[in-house]
Amino acid sequence: MTNYQILNEKTVIDYIREQPELSARFTDTDALQASEVGDGNLNLVFIVRNSRIPNEAVILKQAVPYLRVAGESWPLSRERMRFEAQALLLYAEIVPTLVPTVYRYDEPMSIVVMEYLGAHEVMRKPLVARRQFPHFADHISTFLANVLFKTSDFYRTGLEKKTLQSRFINPHLCKIQEDFVFTNPYMESSENRWNPEIDSTVRAVRSNTALKLSIAELKEKFMTQGQALIHSDLHTGSIMVSANDTRVIDPEFCFFGPMGYDIGAVLSNLMMNFASHYAHTPDTADRDAYQGYLMETMRAIWLGFAEKFEQLWVAHNTGELVPDSYWRFPDGEAAFAAYRQNTLRRILQDTLGLGACESLRRMMGIVSVWDISSIQDNIARATVERLIIRVSSRWILERSTFNHIDEALGILREESIRI
Amino acid sequence: MTNYQILNEKTVIDYIREQPELSARFTDTDALQASEVGDGNLNLVFIVRNSRIPNEAVILKQAVPYLRVAGESWPLSRERMRFEAQALLLYAEIVPTLVPTVYRYDEPMSIVVMEYLGAHEVMRKPLVARRQFPHFADHISTFLANVLFKTSDFYRTGLEKKTLQSRFINPHLCKIQEDFVFTNPYMESSENRWNPEIDSTVRAVRSNTALKLSIAELKEKFMTQGQALIHSDLHTGSIMVSANDTRVIDPEFCFFGPMGYDIGAVLSNLMMNFASHYAHTPDTADRDAYQGYLMETMRAIWLGFAEKFEQLWVAHNTGELVPDSYWRFPDGEAAFAAYRQNTLRRILQDTLGLGACESLRRMMGIVSVWDISSIQDNIARATVERLIIRVSSRWILERSTFNHIDEALGILREESIRI
Repeated sequence: MTNYQILNEKTVIDYIREQPELSARFTDTDALQASEVGDGNLNLVFIVRNSRIPNEAVILKQAVPYLRVAGESWPLSRERMRFEAQALLLYAEIVPTLVPTVYRYDEPMSIVVMEYLGAHEVMRKPLVARRQFPHFADHISTFLANVLFKTSDFYRTGLEKKTLQSRFINPHLCKIQEDFVFTNPYMESSENRWNPEIDSTVRAVRSNTALKLSIAELKEKFMTQGQALIHSDLHTGSIMVSANDTRVIDPEFCFFGPMGYDIGAVLSNLMMNFASHYAHTPDTADRDAYQGYLMETMRAIWLGFAEKFEQLWVAHNTGELVPDSYWRFPDGEAAFAAYRQNTLRRILQDTLGLGACESLRRMMGIVSVWDISSIQDNIARATVERLIIRVSSRWILERSTFNHIDEALGILREESIRI
Repeated sequence: MTNYQILNEKTVIDYIREQPELSARFTDTDALQASEVGDGNLNLVFIVRNSRIPNEAVILKQAVPYLRVAGESWPLSRERMRFEAQALLLYAEIVPTLVPTVYRYDEPMSIVVMEYLGAHEVMRKPLVARRQFPHFADHISTFLANVLFKTSDFYRTGLEKKTLQSRFINPHLCKIQEDFVFTNPYMESSENRWNPEIDSTVRAVRSNTALKLSIAELKEKFMTQGQALIHSDLHTGSIMVSANDTRVIDPEFCFFGPMGYDIGAVLSNLMMNFASHYAHTPDTADRDAYQGYLMETMRAIWLGFAEKFEQLWVAHNTGELVPDSYWRFPDGEAAFAAYRQNTLRRILQDTLGLGACESLRRMMGIVSVWDISSIQDNIARATVERLIIRVSSRWILERSTFNHIDEALGILREESIRI
């Protein structure tokens, strides 16, 4: 199997058997069973397991040479599996406990075989069910601080960072975000979908000059600011959780972009979930309690990120930006501290601005999120969506005034009162 | 000659004779003569000419695998000649009359053979001699507007731009600018050189927290903002001029960086020349006249750039940032105009901030410029240098307040009065 071929539930078993490092993971390869479980958007995803010992299992992900959700008429480079494999392998060096382990990457076949996370579930639906994950803020802020710091110019030499960056030039998947996060939702575009109940609000967004100027600037930042290796699709559907464990999956969109886009995707997806409970959770006490948990989680994610990022920076100021010797003058220690604070403030502002494009587009673009689309009643859904649109718009428009995460969360609180 | 070897004045003639497309440029290859004319910093530069017909000549540039000025102990990748060749060939597509024509690029030999510009001279010394080049502002603003626009996301699709960008990942030469423009001059570093008469001023810069925070931010911009293909060494020593003609040379430092760095290098080198005439030109009338010419040239370069860039943008809004359809709403035309103006304002602010790092470093870093180093009297030189330091510092610190080039030129005028 040196030439590319698309696997199916039968051939995927032969593939596993033929690779010694994969077949060795099973006590009995005669009992292998496979099922295709992909969400159908992009890739084939197989669970291959020992039918006699269900814990013995691996995940095999294969890219097909087209956008699966759109069919063979929409070609999409299989190279995306290279980006996913490279990112997972790099994450494994930096934050090994926060990603699935990769067992094999097969470039000609566009296959990644990795750890089966049987005890985990994708985070989005449990959040709709008001489940709490007390370690999540700590885990995801550790992931963000470590990956973003350690792929940046703050940690790496210019040569190391640029060499790494050159392996993550990912134009085809970037294009999807450029179109569907930063452009098409805010204009006439045939693939846009929105709740007819918010039609006038959607039209107002599409004609809001100040907002569109800001979104265009944020798009430029997304396209030109190669600050660190970002996941670039870090919504709550790209995170798997169990009671005590968190794993980031699906980094195929990764490239060197602005750090705030990843942090912002996490926060804005939690913000959308927060809003969705005005529909999902009519009981006020239950809703207040869960929204309080979400608010605290968003706060803890940013504060955890900022604290860990700064600790890493102080402990490992080994990058090109900028050497300790540059700060060797009478007030240099305070100057370096101010530089870190200024940098974190700019990342905070990017986080809210870029993150809010993710939540805004989910209200009027090609694809919603389960938190919202699972609200059956269009009028209740509209209330939630208008809240998300107001909060997102203000995060975008007011981003350059933010000095602390509490200012952004205050906007969410303020707009929630007006619901 | 398929394997790399360093040429000399004898073997370079054999090389020319062996390449049909090069030998065909000469009516008589028996009469070829070569002389090495490089400034000795980085590369070998030969003029090879027909000794009987001096107009029949080519320039052959070869990279050696070390930093020539520092000797063989400082290795430097020969790959820089690939970047120079790629940039010159791309410039030839975009602005063919403003660069030397490339006749041959030989990657294994790290050689570029190009047009001999016998009627031109490097711009720096004529500016010290108060020569005027009435077409220069028009030519260089055409170069800047066209190259920067046509390699940006405003003109190219994301795929085109990122594919191009991946061919210009140039970490070794970027590192030289990162160190010598944005870091070492402002701290203790053994290679720094400065006029002992400005010692206290230099020490004050190195301890100026606000200034160093700004320079660190500008360095981050230089390292992370892949906005367009920039020349990245566009001082007046990288520009050749004749009475009516302008050519940009030596783009080996090129990479995808912030547009303002190139525009700023041109402006800040003219600003340094402006200041130098307080020493070079004691006659007040002569000095005023020439400084007036320089002031007008700086103004015309920015205004010309901005006007041409915007015209190109309106005429060729074909890039990812952002499609016309995004602006299709009642106030959309005005919104697109505001977007262009906002973008140009941000480029102006980058231009002054990044450009001022170039002029500031020339006062206290590894290498000065002829405009200054040719001032024999250290006290007269110090007056000039302190003026340049004051103007550069204010351009850096006040950059985010600039809306018009006249504000930056006003600072130059103001500080000149205080001389």
